[in-house]
Amino acid sequence: MPVLQFQPLTSRPTASFWSALTSYKLDKAKLDDSIQSIEGWMEEGRTIQDTDATFAHQGDERFIGIDGSLVVAGNAFGDDIEKPPLKSIPVGGFLKNFNTIEEFRQVDSKRIAFDRVVELMVESFSTDKPILNPFLLVTFADLKRYTYHYWFAFPALVTKPVWETEEQGFTPADPSEVEALRDSITGVPGNRLTDAAFLIKKIPSGFELGPLSAYGEFFSQTPLDQRSIAFHDPSSSGEHPGWPLRNVLYYLFVKHNVDRVRVICLREGTASRHGIVQLPVGPRIQSQSQDLPSAVGWERDGNGKLSSRLADLASSMDPTRLAEQAVDLNLKLMKWRVMPTIDLQKIARTKCLLLGAGTLGCYVARNLMAWGVRNITFVDSGTVSFSNPVRQPLFLFDDCLNGGADKAHCAAKRLRQVFPGVNANSFKLAIPMPGHRASPQLETDLATLVDLFHEHDAVFLLMDSRESRWLPTVIGASQGKMVINAALGFDTYLVMRHGPPRSAVNTSRLGCYFCNDVVAPADSLTDRTLDQMCTVTRPGVAPIAAATAVELFVTILQNPLGWSTVPHLVDAPAVVELSPKLFAMIRFIS
Amino acid sequence: MPVLQFQPLTSRPTASFWSALTSYKLDKAKLDDSIQSIEGWMEEGRTIQDTDATFAHQGDERFIGIDGSLVVAGNAFGDDIEKPPLKSIPVGGFLKNFNTIEEFRQVDSKRIAFDRVVELMVESFSTDKPILNPFLLVTFADLKRYTYHYWFAFPALVTKPVWETEEQGFTPADPSEVEALRDSITGVPGNRLTDAAFLIKKIPSGFELGPLSAYGEFFSQTPLDQRSIAFHDPSSSGEHPGWPLRNVLYYLFVKHNVDRVRVICLREGTASRHGIVQLPVGPRIQSQSQDLPSAVGWERDGNGKLSSRLADLASSMDPTRLAEQAVDLNLKLMKWRVMPTIDLQKIARTKCLLLGAGTLGCYVARNLMAWGVRNITFVDSGTVSFSNPVRQPLFLFDDCLNGGADKAHCAAKRLRQVFPGVNANSFKLAIPMPGHRASPQLETDLATLVDLFHEHDAVFLLMDSRESRWLPTVIGASQGKMVINAALGFDTYLVMRHGPPRSAVNTSRLGCYFCNDVVAPADSLTDRTLDQMCTVTRPGVAPIAAATAVELFVTILQNPLGWSTVPHLVDAPAVVELSPKLFAMIRFIS
Repeated sequence: MPVLQFQPLTSRPTASFWSALTSYKLDKAKLDDSIQSIEGWMEEGRTIQDTDATFAHQGDERFIGIDGSLVVAGNAFGDDIEKPPLKSIPVGGFLKNFNTIEEFRQVDSKRIAFDRVVELMVESFSTDKPILNPFLLVTFADLKRYTYHYWFAFPALVTKPVWETEEQGFTPADPSEVEALRDSITGVPGNRLTDAAFLIKKIPSGFELGPLSAYGEFFSQTPLDQRSIAFHDPSSSGEHPGWPLRNVLYYLFVKHNVDRVRVICLREGTASRHGIVQLPVGPRIQSQSQDLPSAVGWERDGNGKLSSRLADLASSMDPTRLAEQAVDLNLKLMKWRVMPTIDLQKIARTKCLLLGAGTLGCYVARNLMAWGVRNITFVDSGTVSFSNPVRQPLFLFDDCLNGGADKAHCAAKRLRQVFPGVNANSFKLAIPMPGHRASPQLETDLATLVDLFHEHDAVFLLMDSRESRWLPTVIGASQGKMVINAALGFDTYLVMRHGPPRSAVNTSRLGCYFCNDVVAPADSLTDRTLDQMCTVTRPGVAPIAAATAVELFVTILQNPLGWSTVPHLVDAPAVVELSPKLFAMIRFIS
Repeated sequence: MPVLQFQPLTSRPTASFWSALTSYKLDKAKLDDSIQSIEGWMEEGRTIQDTDATFAHQGDERFIGIDGSLVVAGNAFGDDIEKPPLKSIPVGGFLKNFNTIEEFRQVDSKRIAFDRVVELMVESFSTDKPILNPFLLVTFADLKRYTYHYWFAFPALVTKPVWETEEQGFTPADPSEVEALRDSITGVPGNRLTDAAFLIKKIPSGFELGPLSAYGEFFSQTPLDQRSIAFHDPSSSGEHPGWPLRNVLYYLFVKHNVDRVRVICLREGTASRHGIVQLPVGPRIQSQSQDLPSAVGWERDGNGKLSSRLADLASSMDPTRLAEQAVDLNLKLMKWRVMPTIDLQKIARTKCLLLGAGTLGCYVARNLMAWGVRNITFVDSGTVSFSNPVRQPLFLFDDCLNGGADKAHCAAKRLRQVFPGVNANSFKLAIPMPGHRASPQLETDLATLVDLFHEHDAVFLLMDSRESRWLPTVIGASQGKMVINAALGFDTYLVMRHGPPRSAVNTSRLGCYFCNDVVAPADSLTDRTLDQMCTVTRPGVAPIAAATAVELFVTILQNPLGWSTVPHLVDAPAVVELSPKLFAMIRFIS
């Protein structure tokens, strides 16, 4: 009798699966590399009419078989983010995601995972829910490059001797029988397609179905030659049923002593087959051995070799999205080991207003962006001068030409060129200063500034004079905003937070830049010599101060006793009343 | 008799003068704003034939007068960088360069400078070198914007009553007389054109010349009506002699009681004039008054108003050169007040090799450039990935596309876009590491690296693994280079200098990164999980470490006991011997 051969199963992981794996690894599993259950979907095989012109003009009709695949998709981790493929059968599987490429490459580490799956299968055979066709997926995800090393296995237990068919092998099944069978499947409540394989017996109204584990009882009244099983068959081959049949037959033989049974291969359209399979007479495998049964089933790669494959998502992903994920990656990795409790979302959603787009402003913006802050607004009234780019790390030489670009707008533009995912805004605006002549736009400037404070959560004071910090200090206090102040000397710097209450409980206010001053802020810009006008600093001071300011900001955000978002705990005048008062103050001091 | 009127003198400061003023202020005067002697040049007036078509077709001939100007040029500060204009007369002047625009704008501050010049003139009248036609230039140089506020004055002492001419006024001088006179001037040894004004008397061989201060003796034998003076006249007017004549006449009257004299106005070509001037009978100014005599002479602007002018050099300068000067400016201003002894040239000429063009490399390069370092070479074997730009401040999102640009080359390119004056080079090169598989290019890579060390003065170790620092540490020690090492932890960093001798005197070597290690450097990269592969750091740590490294570098350069440039004081093997030895060591450890 001809030896029964099985059509190997092929895998088809979708791009959305790799994306889901990335999130799973990054946000959930982190360094946990234990074996994890995942869900896949198996498609039935089908034949389609070949409309290729070569045959069409001869009036010849040909059919092409298309095997179904084992699909793992974006819903593999149980998230209902994606519908399963139409007419597909759910298949449970196991994921072993290694932490390092070296582990992934080791033969032993993969064999251990494979053996563990076989063990789980064999263990399940003693239950009424035997695991018959699990898949194993071993992976190494290089989340930095969006490349995924992977290897699927469809473990099949080896039967000795091998199964045989009858002389005629598998033949087309009677379409009306298949249709009646499918009707029965659909009728089983709660099961879309019930199990991947099941027992069937003909009854007057059609078919009765039963689980494989109930073989004895189900067929107790059925003559041997009327016992049939059906399975959803991914093969489209006329001769070879698909791979899942292997373990079904192994299980039936080992657990139910079945050595001859009729098999219906359920396939799409008219491709279904049926045939009788049997074990030849002779010595049989010892079902009760303590050792694990032999199993095969590592998938071959595109070249037919036993080898892992590589999925490269980077080339097919939207680059902007890639950049966003890459930036998040660096931050999320902090949660794996060094700072598991850090609330990155809190940082990401904090809207930052940067007053001053000079040396400090550029460095602060870069640091905020590196921390995942997505909303950054620049305020500056100046233009980019030739001395700026070497010290102000958002500007280029070209920005100095033709009189110089507006600093605020240019900084926002360059920030987007660094990272398109940032929402960078800009306002060309002079901050009203006590002691200085009031500009004709004073009232609109002030209104804009007050509005900007309302629209942001944290404000950075990054200007180059003392008096320009006064008004923002007052507005910040009145609105209960977190205000971070940074200022440079030649080889010194100051970084401090300003005064919203420490928490909802401790409402005592912190100090501000002007708290201990013995003189009111006044015009310090007039009569300055050139070396006092340009901020003459050691170049290293600004990046240190800016980084310190941003680290302070992040630290305060993370401290449970840190920044309170409740603005009305402060005993400052309400904002609606503030504006006329401020006008008066500025005019008085001017 | 007609009143004698004078053609006002006009100033013409050249672009090279503003450039010289910039250097003078920045490098020499700094905050010193005392009055400074400068040199100018006066041109004689001339007439040229008008070739305008309007007149040409009528056969009519017209002449256009072109007044000479008072030119101040690049040689105003006595540097022989520029020849004086041809046929021009040297004129001594005074510069008052204010430190602030506010001082410049004050009326009083300018009057004080003007009065001081008048005082100097009057004082000089008692000597044999009277200062007769000094100019005063008051300026405020905004070196940041390359704009120069300025105002010339040509102080002229007021004679009461005013001088008059004879009825016919000034008439064309006899060309042969002028020619003979010029011959006499040329004959005076050591004087190109002798004084701006001088006494002349006719002698048989031509003319005899004398200084104004010798009026009495020179003309003791000369009848009153044969006494003449000549002066180089910037005017081209037929009626009006030029402004310099005012003070000449004032001086002759006050010091030598001259109230009638023949004047020859020396001009170019055939434009010279002559005429007799005299004081009318009546009350005269009191020459012996203690008060300063009245003086006038502030130049009017292009609109005829008494107002300062503005020279804007920025629009006409080469932008690249502008950027270079602007970068230098910020540094040179340190020398004005906070750090007068800093040797910026030593920093500028130090060639820096950056091993690693990642987060540290980018920040270090920017800091070096801000300190004026002009030669920066990057070494990196990697490409720009999507997570890089937000943390590595030379890269843009576009650099990640198409697989990512080579980091070293890209960093050099972006550095030039920030500042075209930088000489940025790059090598895509993997640094051989102990414990790692030796690459096929090991020998050429090593040779390149050794060469690069030779070609640079300071080397920054900015890689992301311990073992990659080993070989550069050894090469650096063998060549006696300054090696600065920076390394990042999550919220920690290390910045240190490596081992060349502290000075030529103290030759004991400093330690290095590996000095206190109990284990040899080995492969620490294999088997690292993702969060160990990516440098997971608080984003603020890198800019702080990079800035600290560069400040350390600068500080060592400035310390007289700091970095010795003598490489052969170290007791390391000579470099020619080193390479085979290194090979052996790397191969041994690998």
